[in-house]
Amino acid sequence: MGTFSFSDKLERWDVFEFSAKGKTAGNPFTDYTIIGIFKNKNETVKVDGFYDGEGIYKVRFMPSFTGTCTFEIGGTFSDEAYHGSFEVSVPGKGNHGPVRVAHTYHFVYEDGTSYYSIGTTCYVWELQSEELQKKTLESLKNGPFNKIRFCIFPKHYDYNLKEPRSYPYMGKPMDSSVLTKENFMRYDGTSVGNDWDFKRFNPEYFRHIENCIRSLRDLGIEADLIVMHPYDRWGFSRMDAECDDLYWNYCIARFAAFRNVWWSLANEYDLMPWKKEEDWERYARIICEKDPYRRLRSIHNCRHFYDYSRPWVTHCSIQRQDIYKSAELTAEYRERYRKPIVLDEIAYEGNIQHGWGNISGKEMIRRFWEAACRGGYAGHGETYLNDKDILWWSHGGELHGESPERLKFLHRILCETPGSGLMPVRANWDEIACTVEDVMGSSGYYLYYYSFMRPSFRDFHFDDLNEYRVEVIDTWEMCIEDRGIHRGRFRVELPGKEYMAVRIRRIEPEK
Amino acid sequence: MGTFSFSDKLERWDVFEFSAKGKTAGNPFTDYTIIGIFKNKNETVKVDGFYDGEGIYKVRFMPSFTGTCTFEIGGTFSDEAYHGSFEVSVPGKGNHGPVRVAHTYHFVYEDGTSYYSIGTTCYVWELQSEELQKKTLESLKNGPFNKIRFCIFPKHYDYNLKEPRSYPYMGKPMDSSVLTKENFMRYDGTSVGNDWDFKRFNPEYFRHIENCIRSLRDLGIEADLIVMHPYDRWGFSRMDAECDDLYWNYCIARFAAFRNVWWSLANEYDLMPWKKEEDWERYARIICEKDPYRRLRSIHNCRHFYDYSRPWVTHCSIQRQDIYKSAELTAEYRERYRKPIVLDEIAYEGNIQHGWGNISGKEMIRRFWEAACRGGYAGHGETYLNDKDILWWSHGGELHGESPERLKFLHRILCETPGSGLMPVRANWDEIACTVEDVMGSSGYYLYYYSFMRPSFRDFHFDDLNEYRVEVIDTWEMCIEDRGIHRGRFRVELPGKEYMAVRIRRIEPEK
Repeated sequence: MGTFSFSDKLERWDVFEFSAKGKTAGNPFTDYTIIGIFKNKNETVKVDGFYDGEGIYKVRFMPSFTGTCTFEIGGTFSDEAYHGSFEVSVPGKGNHGPVRVAHTYHFVYEDGTSYYSIGTTCYVWELQSEELQKKTLESLKNGPFNKIRFCIFPKHYDYNLKEPRSYPYMGKPMDSSVLTKENFMRYDGTSVGNDWDFKRFNPEYFRHIENCIRSLRDLGIEADLIVMHPYDRWGFSRMDAECDDLYWNYCIARFAAFRNVWWSLANEYDLMPWKKEEDWERYARIICEKDPYRRLRSIHNCRHFYDYSRPWVTHCSIQRQDIYKSAELTAEYRERYRKPIVLDEIAYEGNIQHGWGNISGKEMIRRFWEAACRGGYAGHGETYLNDKDILWWSHGGELHGESPERLKFLHRILCETPGSGLMPVRANWDEIACTVEDVMGSSGYYLYYYSFMRPSFRDFHFDDLNEYRVEVIDTWEMCIEDRGIHRGRFRVELPGKEYMAVRIRRIEPEK
Repeated sequence: MGTFSFSDKLERWDVFEFSAKGKTAGNPFTDYTIIGIFKNKNETVKVDGFYDGEGIYKVRFMPSFTGTCTFEIGGTFSDEAYHGSFEVSVPGKGNHGPVRVAHTYHFVYEDGTSYYSIGTTCYVWELQSEELQKKTLESLKNGPFNKIRFCIFPKHYDYNLKEPRSYPYMGKPMDSSVLTKENFMRYDGTSVGNDWDFKRFNPEYFRHIENCIRSLRDLGIEADLIVMHPYDRWGFSRMDAECDDLYWNYCIARFAAFRNVWWSLANEYDLMPWKKEEDWERYARIICEKDPYRRLRSIHNCRHFYDYSRPWVTHCSIQRQDIYKSAELTAEYRERYRKPIVLDEIAYEGNIQHGWGNISGKEMIRRFWEAACRGGYAGHGETYLNDKDILWWSHGGELHGESPERLKFLHRILCETPGSGLMPVRANWDEIACTVEDVMGSSGYYLYYYSFMRPSFRDFHFDDLNEYRVEVIDTWEMCIEDRGIHRGRFRVELPGKEYMAVRIRRIEPEK
């Protein structure tokens, strides 16, 4: 039995990686197993490893506790078995652990820090040029986002006709020189000319995605991985069940140990009618069985919602079903599913020809506030036309819109909320009102949002006893005006402008 | 038998008025009848007359045809019977006759001229000071509106606490000096202190309303009369069935002959729960029986629609049921009711505290275009705060908003439409598209509206044969840009701004 020594400093919720040479005869991706068992005083976790090419097998593990962790590595990959141990230290600054569901409708990091999701979408940012990826990471570093949705497979779609930087499988793609902006829709996962071995992964492709996940983690950004999607000319969306399952197992073995990973089973799953409900449920079973960390799990629709009440679904990942109402329906969705409502697609800020990609920054911000004040979380995307056909929504790069800085401001307001999230409260029909979720009794915190309505004043009356600090928030201009302390019935004058909010906080009597 | 000579020039669709002294013993409003029978070569019409005070009885009649009209006046009002005749000339300029329903979903004047409704609401403009009424008429003269909704009874509501210029009944009102902006809601139709004789009208009150109807007629504006409403401190909304019916008969006898009258049974009928469906149906029966001109008839909701499928309802008069979607639902309403869809309340441009009265001019115009391009008709209202508490929505006066001039522009676009109205057509999910209603085959007219979406271009393809003239319309900036003639598949570049439309008209080959 061999020992594996690990000398790096390892924080709680970081990734431990075992690596060893193994057998290469036949197909190492399918012919051999590698399994790790990790133990500390609180848990015993069994995880699958994976073949990483060039004779190297790996096992990854994320420790959920500090202290000594021992492990054993077995399987048919090698005639040798391995064991060892390592020390797990307390998490460093910025490491709050994975994000979990809390208070039914919200999220917290495992260390108890609130997590208010401000997501964006850059479908295949990680498959662009090195230069562009660098720009994307720079934009993310300076931007408001703490979650990004992106695909593992490359994307074939309008504005997405170029070859990706590499391919997930060994083999050869169809000749893409035939593609034009006019004819690309004629090509799909059944197109001829592709020649792939769906049982031999390209480890370099996946290693690169891991590097991207790590970069995001270091920026404090959750990686909402879209594992399957329909925008395909290579056939990756049309593999048989055996190859699908092999792919799922490979993804889980490689990615699950990263604390910032979320699983999105698919983008617009309903545009893949050749995948049946039993397929999606089978993938979900694989994740539930093979991901020991219980990463967040969901699936994203085009038209019809997946059944979000399924037990494996940790949160809703919704695409709006109506041109006009999206985030406005958050409270109804909460009622229906009793899970966190993440509205990952409420249309994108931009000016492309498609109606899902040409709303204004103002409308984007309005939708975010509508969602937030109903106790949900909207998602951003950007689709401004440009000469280089580099659109944030798919390629990343630079942000050009008006919404990102306002999202930072919204995030600030959310971070100033006590508790871990907002919940809608009964209010007048013409205001969106919320308070703090899951607080026994009254939190004394109220946030009113007026959307496109432009009242010149509003009257309030909570009780005759307590004093309340009143602030008027211009959600677009990003300013907060202190309106002093009030008691009993009081009037708040407003500027008669769109996108205003009023924040009211009870002043707690000194004890 | 006496003869009644009438020497004025009378146009088709104008009002002929018979007037004679009659009995005054007892209560002339209830104790006597006066009936007119009018005949010409095409029709025989029987109408009720009314008591106009000071011993004078009147009968009004609107001739629908040119030529000689003979009449007989009878009833118990006088021991004398009258007869006579008069000549009806062709209508003068601007007299198109009454508005009728056409092509299921639209309106035309009786002379065949298209009528594209651009309505507004000034609930009690006619009960304000003479000076303010004059201002209102001036605003209407210069404004875009061809329909105005207003109440026959005075209004008690926020911003409506003053006494009206006079009262519809003989008697005395409650002391209104007790009213404040805070307490007014405690007073309603059951308030004490009122002392009215609901069987004795104040003819001067009704004569004044007739003058207002005449003034509107002369401006080419339809008078959408709201006969009942719940905003009441005098008890006019709480009369018994006998007095209600007396009131309905009186209104019909006095107003029906004016060609620009529409009947709105009530505003927010559902805020008068003490009136049952059988009451509304009874009022409708009275109108159908007593109004020989078949004026347009509807009833306006607050929350729940009245059953617009009732045969007596000529068109829907809708108040939006949702903060976010109003005009956007026009096509669904058309489908459901198969009648003209008039959205009389889609929220008003302004900045008052109430959510129904503080949308922007841009949002107002967007809603009008959403309705128009779905083959319906939205309604305007304005509620800007000011020192004098004079709000267009209730008092008339001056218009301050940004929407009226854009409504003029929309009306121009509608008037440039062939046929009598627009109908929605199957289009991409992200565009509102319409063509001409009820044209056999293709009219070759298409209007596309992009609402808050901001496409930088759109592609079109109707056929490979015909040529099409393309125009880009900025519905907010009110300009039309000629983009030349196109054939086959073509692209229209757009400025990536909100509120754009594209008008496409087939060029008819010369014969």
